[in-house]
Amino acid sequence: MEQANPPAGSARNRKVVLREYISRAPREDDMALVDGGAMPLRVPEGAAGPAVLVKNLYLSCDPYMRGRMRDFHGSYIPPFKPGSVIEGLGVARVMDSTHPGFVAGDIVSGMTGWEEYSLIDKPEQLNKIQQSDIPLSYHLGLLGMPGFTAYVGFYEICSPKKGEFVFVSAASGAVGQIVGQLAKLHGCYVVGSAGTNEKVELLKDKFGFDAAFNYKEEPDLTVALKRYFPEGIDIYFENVGGPMLDAVLLNMRMHGRIAVCGMVSQHGMTDPAGIHNLFCLVPKRISMKGFIQSDYINLFPQFVDYMTKHYKDGKIAYVEDMSIGLENAPAAFVGLFSGKNVGKQVVCVSQE
Amino acid sequence: MEQANPPAGSARNRKVVLREYISRAPREDDMALVDGGAMPLRVPEGAAGPAVLVKNLYLSCDPYMRGRMRDFHGSYIPPFKPGSVIEGLGVARVMDSTHPGFVAGDIVSGMTGWEEYSLIDKPEQLNKIQQSDIPLSYHLGLLGMPGFTAYVGFYEICSPKKGEFVFVSAASGAVGQIVGQLAKLHGCYVVGSAGTNEKVELLKDKFGFDAAFNYKEEPDLTVALKRYFPEGIDIYFENVGGPMLDAVLLNMRMHGRIAVCGMVSQHGMTDPAGIHNLFCLVPKRISMKGFIQSDYINLFPQFVDYMTKHYKDGKIAYVEDMSIGLENAPAAFVGLFSGKNVGKQVVCVSQE
Repeated sequence: MEQANPPAGSARNRKVVLREYISRAPREDDMALVDGGAMPLRVPEGAAGPAVLVKNLYLSCDPYMRGRMRDFHGSYIPPFKPGSVIEGLGVARVMDSTHPGFVAGDIVSGMTGWEEYSLIDKPEQLNKIQQSDIPLSYHLGLLGMPGFTAYVGFYEICSPKKGEFVFVSAASGAVGQIVGQLAKLHGCYVVGSAGTNEKVELLKDKFGFDAAFNYKEEPDLTVALKRYFPEGIDIYFENVGGPMLDAVLLNMRMHGRIAVCGMVSQHGMTDPAGIHNLFCLVPKRISMKGFIQSDYINLFPQFVDYMTKHYKDGKIAYVEDMSIGLENAPAAFVGLFSGKNVGKQVVCVSQE
Repeated sequence: MEQANPPAGSARNRKVVLREYISRAPREDDMALVDGGAMPLRVPEGAAGPAVLVKNLYLSCDPYMRGRMRDFHGSYIPPFKPGSVIEGLGVARVMDSTHPGFVAGDIVSGMTGWEEYSLIDKPEQLNKIQQSDIPLSYHLGLLGMPGFTAYVGFYEICSPKKGEFVFVSAASGAVGQIVGQLAKLHGCYVVGSAGTNEKVELLKDKFGFDAAFNYKEEPDLTVALKRYFPEGIDIYFENVGGPMLDAVLLNMRMHGRIAVCGMVSQHGMTDPAGIHNLFCLVPKRISMKGFIQSDYINLFPQFVDYMTKHYKDGKIAYVEDMSIGLENAPAAFVGLFSGKNVGKQVVCVSQE
């Protein structure tokens, strides 16, 4: 079907929408790429308040977004609307602005839509990116929400001490790869788990983990952890829930700390087995704490400084998995839940 | 069978022994009352170190003791030995001492045996009781380990604030009754659950809980908690685990705190269903912390002062359930696990 050319000053705006609410793991066909028609590339006259019109460059695929595909309104963030464009974090270029903080040409990060152009009516949530030799897409990972989740979770929730034994699950993912490297910089002994041998090698060779293992090749996770942590685990950065959490509980040391991060929230919905080993909390005096990075937003500037410095000094590595083209965003997102991505999953909508 | 009279300076010493290790809930016939023969009422000459010989007055029945009936050596306290006398906390009168800190006639509390007379070879763990008008047996509850568990758990683990919503399970028990009253004194709104209507009345009438319910009469614990806490729970003092913990997780408020106390460790061993609602930890930023009172032993003197003052001022009530006679100790202990006891369960071996 041929498309008419959009009127002057407009652009054809393709978008990815959610078809309907789901309660299982997401599939590609839960989303659809639709033609949103011609979009004027200016903030409309008579808008309710200041707004910013952006061209989306990079979109972030994050596990928490699965929660927004459920018809559940009791969470910290409301669900998507079926038939409407999917929202997510992104890096974008400002094309027009009626907000005094932004002008055309600015590069920003923040909540945007899975589409080519977005009209953002809450521009105060956008951050202006000071461009440097760090790739723009890294602001969705290393210098963005996942990196900040790692930073806050490790320093604020885990109370790490030099020499402690740290375990990270989903360790090659956007958050896990950073947690492991922060722990190494802090003088901890760090082991990570991942779901392919390729990722295991990455953990050891690229991210400098002391050891790593493929959980899919371990018949007994409790035994595997005992092998990697003969003296037990002081800190567990929990990204997966389920049987791994149960195995970790049996291997924790006295006064151990568990930082509970995003993924467990997804697993909890569908895990029929439940968690059986919470009885370990008492004799081992374990604390488990759920957290969300945005509660610590006052630490964001120091986080950006820290990560930028250590990245430039070669002390922190970063791996992302980039899909090219908005049309590939659904597959990229779905791949998160089967571990297809190697490193932080992003989608490039446009390079400029 | 007739017993020979014991020799002069000795006494017949009956004792309660564990028959063999168990992995299910304890039954009366897991223990046996045996005649330990004649016991000299003096510390033997040539003992390895200072020791104290005591006459046991009151014995404490505590849920954690169930864990010592299992053949499991990885806990914070070793198991009992089959065929040997059961150990537990007690109040006793010193009959003879080779330790400089104790003399005949002193009243002490600490670890002793479930028997009429005990030779205590680690007397440094005993506390000398300053007698007052508070009954001696209260040193096993209000002024002892359960009261201290409540005090530490509430003040050190729960970080309570005035006006917060507090839920206590097993609320009429030794620990729960004190937690609820401390929370009321702190200006919190407090609801307790218990397993009989008699206990529910006790919570409201005697301990001053704002509300209480019989969990056995609630078809849906999640709905019940929603009714008692329409705005949610800030603090949960966890004594039971299982379905109650799952229901609480769904009803917690943002930044809620769960202090995990003894009983969950028992339930965890036998709960095939597991805990399903840990996914709540992340969006609600909940922290769950296991603790053991002995880690805070430096606070014990201030605890005793606090409880004594408030008890004497009529600000804290205390209910104990006393069984009379060592021969009734097994039944009293077993009753804990079916909720037979109303208040703190103790056994009177001798009044003086």
